[in-house]
Amino acid sequence: MFRYGGYAGKVLRVDLGRGETRDEPLEEDTVRSFLGGEGLGIHFLFQELRANVNPLAPENKLFFLTCPLNLPSIPSALKHAVVTKSPLTGIFLKSMASGTFALKLKAAGYDGVIVEGVSEKPVYLWMNNGKAEIRKAGHLWGMTTHDTQRYIREEVGDATVASIGQAGENLVRYACILFDRRAAGRGGPGAVMGSKRLKAIAVKGDQEVHIANPERLKELTKEVYRIISAHPTFGDSMPRYGTAYAVGATNEAGALPTRNFQTGVFDGAEGISGELMREKYTVKISPCPRCTMACNRVTLAKEWPYVGSVTEGPEYETLALLGGDCGIDRMDAIIAADRLCDEYGLDTISAGNVIAFAMECYERGIITKEDTDGLELRFGNDQAMIEMLRRISFRQGLGNVLAEGVRLASKAIAEETGRFAIHVKGMELPGYDPRAMPDKAIAYAIASRGGCHLTEIPLGLRKKGWSMEEVVEGLKLGQEWRVILDTVGLCRGPIESLDVIADLVSSVTGMGMSPQDLRMMAERTVNLERAFNVREGISRRDDTLPERFFTEPIQSGPTRGQVINRGEFNQALDRYYELRGWDKETGAPTEAKLRELGLSIISMRG
Amino acid sequence: MFRYGGYAGKVLRVDLGRGETRDEPLEEDTVRSFLGGEGLGIHFLFQELRANVNPLAPENKLFFLTCPLNLPSIPSALKHAVVTKSPLTGIFLKSMASGTFALKLKAAGYDGVIVEGVSEKPVYLWMNNGKAEIRKAGHLWGMTTHDTQRYIREEVGDATVASIGQAGENLVRYACILFDRRAAGRGGPGAVMGSKRLKAIAVKGDQEVHIANPERLKELTKEVYRIISAHPTFGDSMPRYGTAYAVGATNEAGALPTRNFQTGVFDGAEGISGELMREKYTVKISPCPRCTMACNRVTLAKEWPYVGSVTEGPEYETLALLGGDCGIDRMDAIIAADRLCDEYGLDTISAGNVIAFAMECYERGIITKEDTDGLELRFGNDQAMIEMLRRISFRQGLGNVLAEGVRLASKAIAEETGRFAIHVKGMELPGYDPRAMPDKAIAYAIASRGGCHLTEIPLGLRKKGWSMEEVVEGLKLGQEWRVILDTVGLCRGPIESLDVIADLVSSVTGMGMSPQDLRMMAERTVNLERAFNVREGISRRDDTLPERFFTEPIQSGPTRGQVINRGEFNQALDRYYELRGWDKETGAPTEAKLRELGLSIISMRG
Repeated sequence: MFRYGGYAGKVLRVDLGRGETRDEPLEEDTVRSFLGGEGLGIHFLFQELRANVNPLAPENKLFFLTCPLNLPSIPSALKHAVVTKSPLTGIFLKSMASGTFALKLKAAGYDGVIVEGVSEKPVYLWMNNGKAEIRKAGHLWGMTTHDTQRYIREEVGDATVASIGQAGENLVRYACILFDRRAAGRGGPGAVMGSKRLKAIAVKGDQEVHIANPERLKELTKEVYRIISAHPTFGDSMPRYGTAYAVGATNEAGALPTRNFQTGVFDGAEGISGELMREKYTVKISPCPRCTMACNRVTLAKEWPYVGSVTEGPEYETLALLGGDCGIDRMDAIIAADRLCDEYGLDTISAGNVIAFAMECYERGIITKEDTDGLELRFGNDQAMIEMLRRISFRQGLGNVLAEGVRLASKAIAEETGRFAIHVKGMELPGYDPRAMPDKAIAYAIASRGGCHLTEIPLGLRKKGWSMEEVVEGLKLGQEWRVILDTVGLCRGPIESLDVIADLVSSVTGMGMSPQDLRMMAERTVNLERAFNVREGISRRDDTLPERFFTEPIQSGPTRGQVINRGEFNQALDRYYELRGWDKETGAPTEAKLRELGLSIISMRG
Repeated sequence: MFRYGGYAGKVLRVDLGRGETRDEPLEEDTVRSFLGGEGLGIHFLFQELRANVNPLAPENKLFFLTCPLNLPSIPSALKHAVVTKSPLTGIFLKSMASGTFALKLKAAGYDGVIVEGVSEKPVYLWMNNGKAEIRKAGHLWGMTTHDTQRYIREEVGDATVASIGQAGENLVRYACILFDRRAAGRGGPGAVMGSKRLKAIAVKGDQEVHIANPERLKELTKEVYRIISAHPTFGDSMPRYGTAYAVGATNEAGALPTRNFQTGVFDGAEGISGELMREKYTVKISPCPRCTMACNRVTLAKEWPYVGSVTEGPEYETLALLGGDCGIDRMDAIIAADRLCDEYGLDTISAGNVIAFAMECYERGIITKEDTDGLELRFGNDQAMIEMLRRISFRQGLGNVLAEGVRLASKAIAEETGRFAIHVKGMELPGYDPRAMPDKAIAYAIASRGGCHLTEIPLGLRKKGWSMEEVVEGLKLGQEWRVILDTVGLCRGPIESLDVIADLVSSVTGMGMSPQDLRMMAERTVNLERAFNVREGISRRDDTLPERFFTEPIQSGPTRGQVINRGEFNQALDRYYELRGWDKETGAPTEAKLRELGLSIISMRG
């Protein structure tokens, strides 16, 4: 077994069909090539899944993977990955979460958990300091995430609990997993858990994780704190407003999704702003251990009928999609909605998009009160939005259609609605209008998991008035930077220097990892993700955007009239494939590129 | 300081006005005379409150008092008392709760907590192993009980937390206090906490409590288990169905409150029965530590729109009052309502009565849709019932009137409604129609805190076809028995033998307490409670029942036509006062009786 710092050196494999668990060593080669988190995830996913598996069938697998920097002493380094084939997109999915789950998993002696098969009856997994047990969960099936966590803790004592809510049980295709109160939100990993009848994973342990060079790590940790505190966004705006700081700026930039991305300026933006949230609604800042960016805050609704609702959030994306995109300017309603999404285990980004889509259908008369069981599903109707969240989670009435995600819902409702079904590859879009931000346009189109808010150009590389060439180059770099973060376990933040990240990884693991090594690893990961997607049928024609963005200019505000030029968009794609070494016709990685990255053998599998 | 087993020997006095806490020794004489819980509570209340204090003013006090048998080794002995002047009745209030609060309080080095004054800003009390601290709670003000408990635990670690919800903050006169998930439900102690801006008390400790004769206690504990397990109700029905076992029997006896006590048979009783609850809704039995009666169960609603609601309960009284008395036969709705009552901190018995009263007003056209803001507040409308619980907790619209309790609400709505405002001395009645159960009729009329479900004849003493004479005698005994339970800390159960109780108390404390001593203590307590109430203006004319029970016969079922005969009722009262040594004209304790009980001095105070 290898002896790198930061690793327990093994993963737990859980076969729910047989009701068995076993320890498996992590291979040294694998770790050197893919490190952890997202990287390790696509490695396993590609290796272990044959092509065209139904994401909700027993053959799909769930990979919970820690990252080498997930250590209690490093700030903003608690991200871990859930990787699976997404029931929302049918392609590669990584879904990142924070909190203490990764710490506990390592303290229990594991770098990850691989879940396969389907249990006949509901179960939960209890991992206690090197031991693992599959326990009955019939009594928990049907409960919210919060209640589940509480009752599991009653049974096992203090533990970190990852659980699904009723949305996951009911196979809502964008059901999330809640790790205590932090979500692995996107792409429906909760539905995969639900399909396996795995209600929760509870973890506890007290094993120490070896660190290769603790002295150097201490110095670096100080450096990381220094970098964070000196940064205007991550050392000031973020601790002050959480991610909600972005509402005002995005709205001013004319990029805030409004009424199902019909426009980029929301006249009710002040009602959902970070400033208002801070002044009137925030009752507590509740950071992950040791984090000074402290994005997480606790908010409390004040006004009838939402008064008394408490949530952790809402994050920027939630405010954008359940707020402006649904035409809703009531912070109280969004707090209540965010709480419901957490309790039922729903991704707020997809839920917001899906409801905004249904609202547009309703306003256009494509669906009527008959379809909504009497609900006035208009933009701005906050009570209808909240009621729909409940109906989606329990697949009631129209909720059963919307639970399928906007791509399938649009097909079920009417073909003509496809042009305003806002998704890429089935994944609903996050809170930035791509017509207003050309980098986002390309990022959404090429991101491995579909319409993704994590594929972006680092703040430090962004420029005003950049050329498409610069955007694409920045994006290729940004994509790799983000894979690195999601593989080593760092939050998005001011650590944009690969030198610092490589130094962190080296001092923890003792691997002697250079910035170039990290980029190579990231490129390998991006290519393997693409190879996986190609194997599932993805090609260049899927690397596109909803029709609305090519044909309907933004209706108002500073970006009024902006629309994506299809020719420029295609040129950018050409350039992106070129930079990546991918075939321009098919968008598939070339043999040469795969060989260069040491992926030539696995690319042939499936 | 005295050295009795089972006591820490001191209480914590908390002056919220000054923001100070101090330890005070318990006096040996006081302990010998009043023991703990209810007994100690009325001692303090009588001594420390002058007459005619507004229950929601700073001058009122809250007494949290443990009992000598509150020990981890004794089953069913976790009851502790909250004593105060009730904002619902304006007289003496004890409100009992279970759970681990008493254990933790003793382990923290205290037998009780006395709270006085009003804090300028919201606070919570943190008691940690002998230390006490008043902490800011502005961030918790506005939260549910469950959220409050969770966020306090985030701050202080694992602790038992007693907290109020929004109903307590909003001074709803029947707001309860939740000790973790167990309520001190009746009479509005949560409103008193709210009036003092005390959001919660968190307690933790690891001090051991001395036991005088642990060997004897061990033997007795075995005996207690044996008695419980051999008992048909407490060893079988209760562990099987919880307190909900009583729904079927009470309905068959024609005593189940139905549609605001209009009749005693509910045709929907099967929908709220213990059997149905067990078969379809119970997911977990969740007893207090070491208890084999295990009345507490966790239930999960299954049907839309209540699906996914989880609660601890519902108890019999909740099923009776929020169920039958509101004409509601949907277990799912009652589970959801019970959860809401716990979250907002509302007493389910009073809430059920108040809503049933409003439903009768609505059906009689005394209030209209205009008064209810459009709500069809009819018997059987479960969604309206649930909406009213929310409006009451936040004092919205008609909820603001109903938040005052049925006595004041009736006065506010229309004088004529007084005859069906179901309360005694302002306390709404529990789940037994007194027309069908003559023992209850007298019990409700004479109970120290008003319409009370804890004043009763022990099961073992009940007879079929008893004379009024026998009922009154049984009730005097039962009243003392129950005071003994609520003073030593035992749950209502099969331990009806004063010999066993005296033996338990003696082996724990080393006091050498005889059954006669216990009865004397109980009589002293009952008399002091009465003296307190007399000082607050209570007299014989208050020892009565709602007019309905004297003039409107039960409408249907096996008790059809039954009504309380006013002459017989008055005779019974005469006899009761006679047995008690109270004045028949005024209902006040005589000087002679007070002297006999060693209460002659304090009875003059006020």
